[in-house]
Amino acid sequence: MATQSSWEDTAKAKRESVLKLIPEKWRISNSIPPASELRDVTRYIQQYLSPREIEITELDTVSLAQRTTTGQWTAAEVAEAFCHRAALAHQLVSCLHEIFFDAALEDAKQLDAYFAEHKKPVGPLHGVPISLKDQFHVKGVETTMGYVSWIGTFQGQKGDPRRLVFESEMVKELRAVGAVLHCKTSVPTTLMCGETVNNIIGYTWNPKNRHLSSGGSSGGEGALIALRGSAGGFGTDIGGSVRIPAVFNGLYGIRPSAGRIPYEGAANSMDGQNSILSVIGPLATTAGSLKLLFHSVLSQKPWLHDPLAVELPWRDELEQEALSLIKNSAADQGQLAFGIMHSDDYVQPLPPVARALRIMKDAVQKLGHKLIEWKPPSHLEALKLARAIYTLDGGADAHYQFRVSGESFIPQLAPFFGDAPRPQKNAEQIAAINVAKRAYQKLYMDYWNSTAELTGTGRPVDGLFCPAAVFPAARPCKTGYINYTSFVNVLDYTSVIVPVTLANKAVDVVGADYTPLSELDKMIHDEYDPGIYDGAHVGLQLVGRRFQEEKMIALAGYVGEAVKSTQVPN
Amino acid sequence: MATQSSWEDTAKAKRESVLKLIPEKWRISNSIPPASELRDVTRYIQQYLSPREIEITELDTVSLAQRTTTGQWTAAEVAEAFCHRAALAHQLVSCLHEIFFDAALEDAKQLDAYFAEHKKPVGPLHGVPISLKDQFHVKGVETTMGYVSWIGTFQGQKGDPRRLVFESEMVKELRAVGAVLHCKTSVPTTLMCGETVNNIIGYTWNPKNRHLSSGGSSGGEGALIALRGSAGGFGTDIGGSVRIPAVFNGLYGIRPSAGRIPYEGAANSMDGQNSILSVIGPLATTAGSLKLLFHSVLSQKPWLHDPLAVELPWRDELEQEALSLIKNSAADQGQLAFGIMHSDDYVQPLPPVARALRIMKDAVQKLGHKLIEWKPPSHLEALKLARAIYTLDGGADAHYQFRVSGESFIPQLAPFFGDAPRPQKNAEQIAAINVAKRAYQKLYMDYWNSTAELTGTGRPVDGLFCPAAVFPAARPCKTGYINYTSFVNVLDYTSVIVPVTLANKAVDVVGADYTPLSELDKMIHDEYDPGIYDGAHVGLQLVGRRFQEEKMIALAGYVGEAVKSTQVPN
Repeated sequence: MATQSSWEDTAKAKRESVLKLIPEKWRISNSIPPASELRDVTRYIQQYLSPREIEITELDTVSLAQRTTTGQWTAAEVAEAFCHRAALAHQLVSCLHEIFFDAALEDAKQLDAYFAEHKKPVGPLHGVPISLKDQFHVKGVETTMGYVSWIGTFQGQKGDPRRLVFESEMVKELRAVGAVLHCKTSVPTTLMCGETVNNIIGYTWNPKNRHLSSGGSSGGEGALIALRGSAGGFGTDIGGSVRIPAVFNGLYGIRPSAGRIPYEGAANSMDGQNSILSVIGPLATTAGSLKLLFHSVLSQKPWLHDPLAVELPWRDELEQEALSLIKNSAADQGQLAFGIMHSDDYVQPLPPVARALRIMKDAVQKLGHKLIEWKPPSHLEALKLARAIYTLDGGADAHYQFRVSGESFIPQLAPFFGDAPRPQKNAEQIAAINVAKRAYQKLYMDYWNSTAELTGTGRPVDGLFCPAAVFPAARPCKTGYINYTSFVNVLDYTSVIVPVTLANKAVDVVGADYTPLSELDKMIHDEYDPGIYDGAHVGLQLVGRRFQEEKMIALAGYVGEAVKSTQVPN
Repeated sequence: MATQSSWEDTAKAKRESVLKLIPEKWRISNSIPPASELRDVTRYIQQYLSPREIEITELDTVSLAQRTTTGQWTAAEVAEAFCHRAALAHQLVSCLHEIFFDAALEDAKQLDAYFAEHKKPVGPLHGVPISLKDQFHVKGVETTMGYVSWIGTFQGQKGDPRRLVFESEMVKELRAVGAVLHCKTSVPTTLMCGETVNNIIGYTWNPKNRHLSSGGSSGGEGALIALRGSAGGFGTDIGGSVRIPAVFNGLYGIRPSAGRIPYEGAANSMDGQNSILSVIGPLATTAGSLKLLFHSVLSQKPWLHDPLAVELPWRDELEQEALSLIKNSAADQGQLAFGIMHSDDYVQPLPPVARALRIMKDAVQKLGHKLIEWKPPSHLEALKLARAIYTLDGGADAHYQFRVSGESFIPQLAPFFGDAPRPQKNAEQIAAINVAKRAYQKLYMDYWNSTAELTGTGRPVDGLFCPAAVFPAARPCKTGYINYTSFVNVLDYTSVIVPVTLANKAVDVVGADYTPLSELDKMIHDEYDPGIYDGAHVGLQLVGRRFQEEKMIALAGYVGEAVKSTQVPN
């Protein structure tokens, strides 16, 4: 009993210490209506903000940076507005692990002083408030990743001199380009979860529909950016953890190939598992913002500071190639070609997601492009590989972290890790999995190459449209099926989330012709309730080959604009 | 007894079947003098060749390609000359696992027909005979990697339909650029050895000094190219296996960073171990040849066919940058800066190698460049990491392969694998090793960056000179200490072997001031015998950062030319 109350006290003290960092003037004093009365708080939040604060915080990263890097707006005013809005967001949906508004405002003043003196910005993100998932170490604050046992430590190590001092490589690079860092966002304990819940801050709800999850594991990022509490942020993705929060929150988000964005010096779970590497990717409200964030990091040559980063600077030529394909097709001098995958042959997407695919299909066809039905190597095989890799250690790391503090296990983690550690894989078994994974990657690559025969463009498909999840956003404890995102991690491909529409209970009903493909498919469809999802964001993935970030961001922006103009649900 | 004679019979039958593929006219009928009477057979071989054959086979890859890609010389004549010389080489030092001269001559005729019809070459290696280590699958012949149990199988699998049909990605790409493939070269069983010995073809001796090893594990490549039995070839390197044979045989050879040259579809030992990846690299007689071979493979965009290949085409700008640094320094408008490491603080190089370092130091200083003493993070730490990674499976794969056929274990493998399998590492232990390796890589990277403070060029060092081995070439069973090469694999850096001089018993004696750094250092120096090494090749490594192949090949060619002009041993 002593131990249990002890971890609960520790978690509570931490939770309250974070809340206390919100200045009195920014505290919400009225009682917030429950989700049953008010699902969507993305507009509700505006009542606490001045028109000027709304103006500042509702720009995308690009438009904001245009103002802050030219001295049009001061970094201090912008930082203040975003800190205020982030504080509100946290009170509405519980999305922050660490708050450092004072440091942000101090940094912003120094940026303003720099601009005043040098008449130029520090870098392309000068004065832009950026949020970070709570895996990044930022001086002055902790990194807990939701583990009670990490409170007061550095990655669980008591007395480690790096505590409160060390900064992750990404943090250094963001500072070098002028970003203002003001908060770190919530994660599910262990990071291996499609929703965001832990024993420190509780549950991060979806701001657009508070019956639903904000996604995970970068759920705090998704919720915060959806509420415009930062101008963009960085999450991580080993099975969908950038893309699921992005799609659940109506954002753009990219899972780049491993090695482009530096992971060096960030905390992680199961660190050293290198069969599928977790990667860092930005989330933001527009595709252009993704480009700015991505490009800004690469401008710092991360490969000189992160031994796992690859020497691939931002390649204008790849982006230009994509843009000229778009331009040519607009002038009827060519076309793009995409694959479209409606189902992974195991669990079909729910009606809102199926409708998003139809919307995208229509939009892309109207633009004159070719769509081919995607008939890839078995995605179930990819799922098996991914699950085998995520559990190589039998859940040893995950269970260890819970055991240290005695905190209660998070039930959502059971599908991966069970209730207790299981036998670990040995070197030979891991090697065999790596060989099987490589064979699958080769098979998929050959399939992708083979589409050159079908597109009529002389090229294989330029990208693949598919669901990112079977649901628009998920209900708590129902995010376990991640096969629509994790196959991308197995392949190490590039994938961008494109927002498409909103769930609509009037049209998004299961059709009479629905036939389940599996027990799980049936269960998920049986549990489907159009009413609960009504109003939730629905988006898709646009998947490209490995290291095609420049191209895929450009294409995502293009098709994202195209579906935006779609008015009528079909 | 029955089993033992069975594997011996199988090995003998295989060995003889390969010898039988040498046409009668190319068999050496006189008895070859023993090494005690004739160390060096690199000139001896010429007696069996016509002046025209010598003219053809003694060009480097670049000069040869100039003649074959312009139609000046026919592919058929060139192939015939190299097949003849490869046949002789095998009879002199036992360096081939597979012979396919008939297929080579047939391919060459088709290339000639293509040229006659199209008035242009198939590609940049049109008509150039290239040898491959026996890990590459080539249609029509086996891949045994020296395992008796692999004879008559595909990678040990009986009845696998890929047998004699499947080709590795590299083989396809070499064919696509016009290379003529004529033989596959010998390897030590398991590949984890600095010399080349197996129960099928026996021992591959060093053609320059037949008391010594040709190195390993690409020892057959080293010996064959030293005897000019191919115009260049490809080996693999996980701990020094391209560089050791290159340096032992007076060749240039490069260990590129993982992901540049496609490994897809090649056989391997301990396949799926992905903490340190084995990489493919070319060996040849000049640095320019390395460039041609490297560039030719990249021209095929391997990243579209190998899921582990990185989208990094040959970058002219990196090479040009290096060349302009060279040009500027020649015009006294700048200088290059190199690190120089004389010892890894555990085993000092033997006198010939120490002298090679002095020769290089003098040459580089005469050219006006800066040299700084290399004081890196502990190389012993790198050795520990490398050894831990090479033995993650406790030798399970190695011992399994021997057990299948019952063939006798190769004693040279005992340092890695012991006499029997040992306990394997589990997922958590492997992850911890990966984390420690990444931390070491980061430490080394930071050290490299820090040299910008010392070079006076504003840049960190442009490269690092260090031994590739403590000995010039090694005596059998004495190649175990690989720390001078394996640290590069831990770091995934680029390293090029530069030939420097020949061992000279008159000057290469242990000085009176020699002080051992360790028991092993003492043992190696006690065993040193200047007489045995006399005449052996001595070279060095020029190490560069990750993915710097274009730059490092250019610099290697530059310093290689500089030391060539050095006449007096110092």
